[in-house]
Amino acid sequence: MERLEELLEHIAARVNVNLGHMGINVVPILKNAIPRERHLLFYAFYALTNDHPVSFRFINSSLGGTYFLGRTLVENSVLYKSDIRGDELKRKGDVVEFGGIKTRLFNDEVIRILNSYLVKTLVHNHSKNPEIPEIFKILNTVAMHYSNIHGTTTESVFLGPFATVDFAYIHNCVVGEFAYVQADGVSRQVIEPGRVWVRHKGVFEFNYLFPRDVLRKYVSMDENGTLSGEFFEHTSRREQDFVPLYSAVWPEPFEGKGRDSYVSPYSVLKGDCVIGDNALVAQRVHIENSVMGKGSNAQENCHISNSIYDGFDITAHGAKVINTHLAKNVFVGFNAFLNGRKPEHITVGRNSIVMPHTIIDSDEPIAIPDNSLVWGLITRQTDLSTQCLDLDDMARADHLALGSMTFTGNGKAFVDAFKVRIEHILEANGAYYDGTKGTRGHAQQIQDACYNILQPFQSGPERGMYPRMTIGE
Amino acid sequence: MERLEELLEHIAARVNVNLGHMGINVVPILKNAIPRERHLLFYAFYALTNDHPVSFRFINSSLGGTYFLGRTLVENSVLYKSDIRGDELKRKGDVVEFGGIKTRLFNDEVIRILNSYLVKTLVHNHSKNPEIPEIFKILNTVAMHYSNIHGTTTESVFLGPFATVDFAYIHNCVVGEFAYVQADGVSRQVIEPGRVWVRHKGVFEFNYLFPRDVLRKYVSMDENGTLSGEFFEHTSRREQDFVPLYSAVWPEPFEGKGRDSYVSPYSVLKGDCVIGDNALVAQRVHIENSVMGKGSNAQENCHISNSIYDGFDITAHGAKVINTHLAKNVFVGFNAFLNGRKPEHITVGRNSIVMPHTIIDSDEPIAIPDNSLVWGLITRQTDLSTQCLDLDDMARADHLALGSMTFTGNGKAFVDAFKVRIEHILEANGAYYDGTKGTRGHAQQIQDACYNILQPFQSGPERGMYPRMTIGE
Repeated sequence: MERLEELLEHIAARVNVNLGHMGINVVPILKNAIPRERHLLFYAFYALTNDHPVSFRFINSSLGGTYFLGRTLVENSVLYKSDIRGDELKRKGDVVEFGGIKTRLFNDEVIRILNSYLVKTLVHNHSKNPEIPEIFKILNTVAMHYSNIHGTTTESVFLGPFATVDFAYIHNCVVGEFAYVQADGVSRQVIEPGRVWVRHKGVFEFNYLFPRDVLRKYVSMDENGTLSGEFFEHTSRREQDFVPLYSAVWPEPFEGKGRDSYVSPYSVLKGDCVIGDNALVAQRVHIENSVMGKGSNAQENCHISNSIYDGFDITAHGAKVINTHLAKNVFVGFNAFLNGRKPEHITVGRNSIVMPHTIIDSDEPIAIPDNSLVWGLITRQTDLSTQCLDLDDMARADHLALGSMTFTGNGKAFVDAFKVRIEHILEANGAYYDGTKGTRGHAQQIQDACYNILQPFQSGPERGMYPRMTIGE
Repeated sequence: MERLEELLEHIAARVNVNLGHMGINVVPILKNAIPRERHLLFYAFYALTNDHPVSFRFINSSLGGTYFLGRTLVENSVLYKSDIRGDELKRKGDVVEFGGIKTRLFNDEVIRILNSYLVKTLVHNHSKNPEIPEIFKILNTVAMHYSNIHGTTTESVFLGPFATVDFAYIHNCVVGEFAYVQADGVSRQVIEPGRVWVRHKGVFEFNYLFPRDVLRKYVSMDENGTLSGEFFEHTSRREQDFVPLYSAVWPEPFEGKGRDSYVSPYSVLKGDCVIGDNALVAQRVHIENSVMGKGSNAQENCHISNSIYDGFDITAHGAKVINTHLAKNVFVGFNAFLNGRKPEHITVGRNSIVMPHTIIDSDEPIAIPDNSLVWGLITRQTDLSTQCLDLDDMARADHLALGSMTFTGNGKAFVDAFKVRIEHILEANGAYYDGTKGTRGHAQQIQDACYNILQPFQSGPERGMYPRMTIGE
């Protein structure tokens, strides 16, 4: 494994050179977080469809357990059980607008991962970086378990476990565990653990901070990259269920799903599950005894159990929904944790938005009204007085300070941004598919995917490394 | 499947342009031999090891069910359930000798397959072509079921089913079903079905011709490429046994094999099988209730049932051995068919050579003495009077005419060529491995292989085609 060791040292050096002054040292993390043999144990795989531009190129990398779809370049990187989804990248000729100025793409966008170490990380959507809209760049980045890099350029960034960077552009930053950042240009900053920060410069800014001691109960990481806390236990308990899927060339498809819906062969569906028409269940999703109504979706790393989705409900990457009833058109953001104790213990009303990184974890039933925005830590129904707002009230706000949340700026722009995005997600996932070409989305486009399996060298100095590859076009 | 249809038409045109005047028309064959859906049904796969130079590059090709190991380029070709084994190619710096003149390779040799259609074809060893020893070229070639292209440049060649071209250089030829050609430079010739022809210009020439009507019982192909006959029935009966292997990412390994032996996870071992030390069982081999003694091997597409190999016995690609006892150091050549009726019905003595494409198929027991050369069609023990010679007698011969066999030239050179080759095969397969590096062979080198799975597009115009790929180096 000499080559893999060298590569890990190389990445550690690149990251430490850039982040060392911010108090981060990734050497022990890269040394200890993943036992070396595990890089060998899991194969990399990719989907081939007629709808996605195929193109991967892996040079001097280790890719154990990682899934690829669409245009990607990986060099000098270690990816471990990550998802690199290039199915919403910008295309050549697309016009993008930054600060009112329009520019046309001269090439298809590509996700370019260089000198980076991603563990169980989701990479999706397209980059919001005005510097070069053709490249979704992940450079000198260490991203820990269940972090999300969503449409965000990261240059010299450390993401703690369950952290999310979303529609952003981040340079030389440390993003603490379970922090959520959606901000246009962040540089040389430490984003503390459990901070939820949404900023559109000159338009609005939303801030919430989880109490540090409470957060520790859910997620914690030591200096060797070892995780503890409820989130980690929750996901670990489900891991074994995935093993049989990864042992078969063609895992058994889920029977009886709705028309034009898609259930990834790499998702687990246990007990009584109903998957409605146009629904999408992505890979690495775990669903148990639940109903996904028409047009609903569960993105990568979601866990849903004993829950009912009435329809057109979104569970963004990494969200966990337990004993919960979602009325129609509910959005549950990244890595949110809705942990009901018994069926329908948590209910979320129509058109509500559960913000990314929201924790609802209560011994008493929690009912979120229709048309709400809800955020932060909710352990009692009365918490809603400081953690929940009617969306219309939010849209009228220009300054708010509620509990640990502050908001300044244009409330309507903030709410509209969410609404536009929710519509985009439903459209992109094919929730509105009616048989016409224009309404096709991921659920329909991935129907004919076949899965390809790539292994690392099993012996010699290249052990755990993948040979040079180019795949599509 | 527009692209696949276009490709098949392209190949048919290239082959017909060159072979049409010899009475061959591959259009109906390429149209009908393999139902289109089958090109989709089976994945291509390749082995990755620390010992073999990895390098495949597939451009505009369909590769269903084909296996790759080592350096290969495939362009504008359709390969179906074929084996492209580049593990005995010449290496950069190797010195090769042609007609007493030595030359050094400026590059690693590569198998280059262009404008060709190979069905269940084995491609192995290195090219004997003096024109460019760095390229093992297969150009404008159609090779039908269970044909072998062994160290042979083929330019505009049609190989019928179960035909073998071996250590040759063949240009503009039609090689009939079950014909075996080992000849240095053959051009614009039709080699009739069932001809066994070994020629070293100016040194020796061996010729045998199977009776046409008898041959038809074993193998026959109509103008649409549809096969019939005992060989085909024999292999077809075993096909289902392979299905479970190809459904698992890591097929169950065979337990209890001898030390430093290798049993491909893509071989079938049924009933009581014993695999001795240093033995090698290649992929697509089917063995039932048999003993493979120390250092023995069974190459691709071999079937062995109810048989005993005492040790250091070779079953070359495609040979079938049933109810047979091989004493030590027996060589059974390509596609030979030893079909005993009950255990030990056929016995072959020590150091004997069963020539490629020999058929021993008798209702009475057949005993081949030690140190024999045996060839052609043997249906009774008395046939041995015209089909079998002591190797020492053969070595003394300079002219022979026995039954349908003729031999002219240097008998010793002929026998020595076989003996050298047999030694090479045992060495190359690791039969003599004693723990030292110099004695390692395929059985040891492939121990740590992992298998990688590549699928074609499942829908759209590219259906059945593979994306562009480069893999190693």
